[in-house]
Amino acid sequence: MTRTDDAPLRDPRLSIEQTRALLADLATLLGPERVLTGHDVLHQHGTDESFHAAAPPDAVVAPRSTEEAVAIVNVCRAHGAPIVPFGAGTSLEGHIAARRGGVCVDMREMNQIVRLSIDDLDVTVQAGVTRRQLEARLLPEGVFFPVDPGSDATIGGMVSTGASGTMTVRYGAMRENVLSLLVVTPDGELVRTRSRARKSSAGYDLTRLLIGAEGTLGLVCEATLRLRPTPEAMSAAVAAFGTLRQAVECVIAVTQYGIPVARIELADERQMEAFNHHSGLDHVVAPTLFLEFHGDPQEVAAQAAEVHRIAAEHGAIDVRTAADESDRRALWRARHQAYDAARSLRPGCRVMTTDACVPVSALVDCVLQTRRDLEETGLDGPIVGHVGDGNFHVTLLLDADDPEEVERAMGFHDRLVRRAIAAGGTCTGEHGVGYGKARYLEIEHGPAVVRMMRAIKHALDPDDLFNPGKIADATVLADEVKPAG
Amino acid sequence: MTRTDDAPLRDPRLSIEQTRALLADLATLLGPERVLTGHDVLHQHGTDESFHAAAPPDAVVAPRSTEEAVAIVNVCRAHGAPIVPFGAGTSLEGHIAARRGGVCVDMREMNQIVRLSIDDLDVTVQAGVTRRQLEARLLPEGVFFPVDPGSDATIGGMVSTGASGTMTVRYGAMRENVLSLLVVTPDGELVRTRSRARKSSAGYDLTRLLIGAEGTLGLVCEATLRLRPTPEAMSAAVAAFGTLRQAVECVIAVTQYGIPVARIELADERQMEAFNHHSGLDHVVAPTLFLEFHGDPQEVAAQAAEVHRIAAEHGAIDVRTAADESDRRALWRARHQAYDAARSLRPGCRVMTTDACVPVSALVDCVLQTRRDLEETGLDGPIVGHVGDGNFHVTLLLDADDPEEVERAMGFHDRLVRRAIAAGGTCTGEHGVGYGKARYLEIEHGPAVVRMMRAIKHALDPDDLFNPGKIADATVLADEVKPAG
Repeated sequence: MTRTDDAPLRDPRLSIEQTRALLADLATLLGPERVLTGHDVLHQHGTDESFHAAAPPDAVVAPRSTEEAVAIVNVCRAHGAPIVPFGAGTSLEGHIAARRGGVCVDMREMNQIVRLSIDDLDVTVQAGVTRRQLEARLLPEGVFFPVDPGSDATIGGMVSTGASGTMTVRYGAMRENVLSLLVVTPDGELVRTRSRARKSSAGYDLTRLLIGAEGTLGLVCEATLRLRPTPEAMSAAVAAFGTLRQAVECVIAVTQYGIPVARIELADERQMEAFNHHSGLDHVVAPTLFLEFHGDPQEVAAQAAEVHRIAAEHGAIDVRTAADESDRRALWRARHQAYDAARSLRPGCRVMTTDACVPVSALVDCVLQTRRDLEETGLDGPIVGHVGDGNFHVTLLLDADDPEEVERAMGFHDRLVRRAIAAGGTCTGEHGVGYGKARYLEIEHGPAVVRMMRAIKHALDPDDLFNPGKIADATVLADEVKPAG
Repeated sequence: MTRTDDAPLRDPRLSIEQTRALLADLATLLGPERVLTGHDVLHQHGTDESFHAAAPPDAVVAPRSTEEAVAIVNVCRAHGAPIVPFGAGTSLEGHIAARRGGVCVDMREMNQIVRLSIDDLDVTVQAGVTRRQLEARLLPEGVFFPVDPGSDATIGGMVSTGASGTMTVRYGAMRENVLSLLVVTPDGELVRTRSRARKSSAGYDLTRLLIGAEGTLGLVCEATLRLRPTPEAMSAAVAAFGTLRQAVECVIAVTQYGIPVARIELADERQMEAFNHHSGLDHVVAPTLFLEFHGDPQEVAAQAAEVHRIAAEHGAIDVRTAADESDRRALWRARHQAYDAARSLRPGCRVMTTDACVPVSALVDCVLQTRRDLEETGLDGPIVGHVGDGNFHVTLLLDADDPEEVERAMGFHDRLVRRAIAAGGTCTGEHGVGYGKARYLEIEHGPAVVRMMRAIKHALDPDDLFNPGKIADATVLADEVKPAG
């Protein structure tokens, strides 16, 4: 594996002449009107929702079929041009920054639902289908797809970041809910990573390798997803606690009783203020759990009653149950607006989002230390958490024009990540590495693991064309990591 | 990736002098009494429970610590000796055959439970801990590990084959239940693939890559596993149907109602005869589902009642409920003895086990075609299935001294695998590839996927020392695949 480390870095960018030749071939393939090079469109496609510096590509193209996607990849290969897959642009660690230029492949025009099997409880969709589009299609069929990140991401993007969401505690993240992928490899070939069988032991798990690979190992064109039957009944509850410790200990108890909660989310006092402020609500301003129960009506009632009892035992000061379906939906709509709610506390602010995840037993100490650090550093940051998984986000509200405050926030973030890793956790529970977290990979995994990752990348993409400068390859460029200016 | 294909095959075996030098260094490391080279021990360690030809290693060593495991790997690396990890020897596709000689690393002396956290519902065990050993340790703690292959495999072996079992339909297989691995890499370094956090998006998923890698990418020393709280209540039922189609359609209906059955297993008429014969039972000889329900007492009763209703709607001719806990245990003990029961139908026979897995919607046709093929080919083979996952096994009962019958069985097996792949399924649902299924990898996945697998193998183990001649690398040796003589 030493070969990889010794390999010289390739030329960072195509020359002007090389780029011109690339664009000409793309125009021949797609027609000139489908090769976008305007300033605004390039800038938009190099910018995600993160705090990291954007980097526009040299061109944006949007394939309309798998055949076009294969052809685009092969044109890029012929020109040695980087390929940066693009979904909804909602990633949070600089995943879509075209750090070496090249071609942004915007997958949003490939948005067909290819095949739906209710008997097999699976669906095959093109990469550009969005989470909400899929939800709407599945609703009348009595089935749903349980991975729900906050934004309306594309399925291809969710595959590539290994997304999770509020229901992961019960139904798993993308890695547990993707059966198979159709991918254009760095060799320019179209492959299906796996059969549609529910289980398989037929060789290395390329599906899981590509999930969370952030477009560095291939271009995802289609995904086959596991579905779940829509529960007959659902109910929701909100429980406020005297202290954060009580709230988290309640979660541990609920888990140990084996109560299959569908959602169990934490918001701290500051986040509750944000919800009240943003949505005109009147929640108690205290550490709060948002819960949801799925099952048949008896099961849901039994789960809710048992959780009510456990919450009371753990010092809940206020427990409210959603009265009906519209109440339940309103509750989760509010929860999904955590980001916007937090922003509303400081109009015009710039947001930096953290993503630590630790073993649940370490969560209370980690969150309390984080809150203390926020106070000592003089920063404002509501906290929300997928607490059943030990994953929490601080939404730092910053004045981007104040370099000293930004500097303080960077220091805070660095301490937070190191604290999570020291507690047996990870620098990223669900947002991924992009280039924003690249410097932490070696701290978290050690150099040998990063060398393995780099060896895999080099073996599958020896010319380093697929989303270069991300994940393990980004570590060589770690000094370039800086906030947007 | 073409590099890999062009690479010459390395010398298949060490010379006698090279082997002598290897054994001397192992003896220096461990003491001569711990380097086993007796004929019987070598033969035993090169023989699994499959139909494939065994291949003894040149020596067997059993590390007692991770440090010793690292040192053994590095001695083997220094001598260019193949390393074949060994667990309980219960694999079914020739996984442990030392096809190029070398050192069998028997992990059974590394059988400590390293750390157990009830708060986090996880446990870290050494690779040599067996499934039943872990079960016994967890029982008094009120938690369990839900992956239960038929044999008393080691956890390291279960990791390496990507094992599943009767509860996979509810709780997932190894890929859904392993958090992290401690592994000696082909570079001779000790790495932990991942943190202990419940979720992570921190780079390529090396954990899942190593699960099912069958020892070809490293030596698994420890695994950190997710646990589940023991359900408050469990109950079991057996439902016999007029036809196989009715039984499978009942399963599809149960799944679509979202009833979280913990187990739902199929046995065909011939397998039911075997159970009755072997265990002195009096089951109706008809296609039968074995079911188990987990939850609190109300949930379990409600699930059982609903499944009873669905089974009746689908033509169940006899439904029995396990009266109490000992009845429930007896029922599953019988189910777990399917293999021995089948063998008892033809004393002295030799067994060939198949492992096809198809989308559930294709299962009825696939099983019916398989049964017809059995009849037309004049073979005896009871069928059991993890039917909720679409996975079924034919236990072919053969006279090993009759080469013509063996030949017919090989032909039957080949047709079965191709039928499963054509139906959107896989050649192996849970037994793995070893070298027995190697010829089907390209048929199932296409050549580009096999090239990717080979490129990953070559990147991580460029000298091809870890369990050579298995999975994708076995395809180059496919003509060597033959039944034991």
